[in-house]
Amino acid sequence: MTERAIDSPRVAGLSYEAAVSETAAEIKGILKGAPAVIRGMTKHLSKAAGKLIRARALLACALREDDTVSPDAVKAAAAAELLHLATLVHDDIIDDADKRRGIETVHRKFGEKYAVLCGDYLFCTALELVSSAGVPGERETAFGRAFPHYLTEVCLGELLQNRNDFNFELTERAYFEIIRGKTAALFEACFYMGFLLSDEKGEASALYTEAGNTLGVIFQLSDDCADYASTLRKSKKPVLSDYARGVVTLPLIYAMKRDAALAARAKKGMELSELKAAVLAAGGLDYAYKKIDGLYKKASKAIQAMAGARKRELLTELLKSSAGKM
Amino acid sequence: MTERAIDSPRVAGLSYEAAVSETAAEIKGILKGAPAVIRGMTKHLSKAAGKLIRARALLACALREDDTVSPDAVKAAAAAELLHLATLVHDDIIDDADKRRGIETVHRKFGEKYAVLCGDYLFCTALELVSSAGVPGERETAFGRAFPHYLTEVCLGELLQNRNDFNFELTERAYFEIIRGKTAALFEACFYMGFLLSDEKGEASALYTEAGNTLGVIFQLSDDCADYASTLRKSKKPVLSDYARGVVTLPLIYAMKRDAALAARAKKGMELSELKAAVLAAGGLDYAYKKIDGLYKKASKAIQAMAGARKRELLTELLKSSAGKM
Repeated sequence: MTERAIDSPRVAGLSYEAAVSETAAEIKGILKGAPAVIRGMTKHLSKAAGKLIRARALLACALREDDTVSPDAVKAAAAAELLHLATLVHDDIIDDADKRRGIETVHRKFGEKYAVLCGDYLFCTALELVSSAGVPGERETAFGRAFPHYLTEVCLGELLQNRNDFNFELTERAYFEIIRGKTAALFEACFYMGFLLSDEKGEASALYTEAGNTLGVIFQLSDDCADYASTLRKSKKPVLSDYARGVVTLPLIYAMKRDAALAARAKKGMELSELKAAVLAAGGLDYAYKKIDGLYKKASKAIQAMAGARKRELLTELLKSSAGKM
Repeated sequence: MTERAIDSPRVAGLSYEAAVSETAAEIKGILKGAPAVIRGMTKHLSKAAGKLIRARALLACALREDDTVSPDAVKAAAAAELLHLATLVHDDIIDDADKRRGIETVHRKFGEKYAVLCGDYLFCTALELVSSAGVPGERETAFGRAFPHYLTEVCLGELLQNRNDFNFELTERAYFEIIRGKTAALFEACFYMGFLLSDEKGEASALYTEAGNTLGVIFQLSDDCADYASTLRKSKKPVLSDYARGVVTLPLIYAMKRDAALAARAKKGMELSELKAAVLAAGGLDYAYKKIDGLYKKASKAIQAMAGARKRELLTELLKSSAGKM
């Protein structure tokens, strides 16, 4: 072995598939190997792994010209999922939710105060993990700043949503502001972090942030549509509907604008089946689907302008699945 | 103006006093100028400024050979205080506290779910702020990692404390493990961040972390003593004592070891005045004060080995005040 090889070892790149597996293993390792005082909670969370959509997005964006990602991308991808998990643990306190990903929520199983600290712990651990990842010098400041910056947006989106619980006057504009924060900001962060880890030139940055933000909006919009379409298709959502929780989403916003009588009745409180039928009849769901189609074209255009056929293919798959087209 | 001056402008250093004022102004600006959706809460928090002990420690440690600090140190110092504030907001949810720094707690005034998000927001904002601060290249990774790393320790310390509420078998060793996490870790972070921003050589790092951690332990230990000494001296603590909240601290731990009858009575529940008298009679407070003296010598030794007379003087003042010697 030459001296140079010792000083600066060549770290082999990982294929996308290998990186996804390593990310899943990294997350599991962190959750199962946490310090004893918190391990009960983190092990519980490890029982219900998510679909790693955010990690996959980051890893796909991080693909370099040779279709591999650096091992540092695995750290960033695992951190993105842990940050998402941290927000879920805190969200479940806020929503007083019973179940998440099919298992009992941390706050229900371990109590509220432990759930606050569990979310904080996951948050710190994730940021510590990503801070140990290296990116080329001139991108280091942007890299270190990305997650805190976008997570601030997530908090503000969550706050705005909570402020608008049971606000049946919510405008379409305010609705999009909420979901751009609470959901799309973290997707944008993942796309941007992936970009920083890739070998794309600096000017491509805007393609990634636009694609990430738009895909995130589509993801949330599809989820909100699923809530109203659940009589038609099986919803992945828990039993409690957005309407019952006071969360006003686009299908209802549009339907209330078209049907003033519905607006008045929705405010007073309606049977869910009745509400859903009225939203469908007023074209609320069709309107939201059309929005998704428009956004899909926008995200797709940004993805098609990125370098690398494999990257474009993987991101298009993620886009389709976010839009419910798979 | 030469071209070089434009390319790399010389940023003037700040005196310690100027840096403390700028830090206070930076914090106030962030709290009062927060986005509308959270401003109600952050403005409320800005009404009761802390004593900026953590910021002062960071700034003193960041002093360079010419007795100035870089403007980046102000960002790090403000971030340290905002991180501390974030932990207080979450702590007050956990402890269900009514008041903090003389004003109503966020969770009492705005509700629990808003307090969770307010803490998260302060946390993200602080980390975003510090990520915009620059340090010399080879220290950048350590700098980015420090706060997330030490805050993980804070969370674990908080968890350990909560796990041991009403545990009258708590050992002295476990007590120190708790306070090293919940309090000393953030002090250590501040000393370490200051070191990274200073022009002290790398090998001095251990002096700073040891002084920071020890000063943090002293700070908490003094606070815990104040709870028992409050019949003698006026305590800064709110009315609810540690004992009533089930928080077992060193004076009580020692007293129960010396007096088995007290241990049995403390478990069953005692009048506070009676408990305090018994702890004093068993020498619990004297024992804790002696511990403080020992730790004081240790911290003082580390401080005396640091470069810069002004730095040593400022840190000695902070140490004295943490030990209740001022």
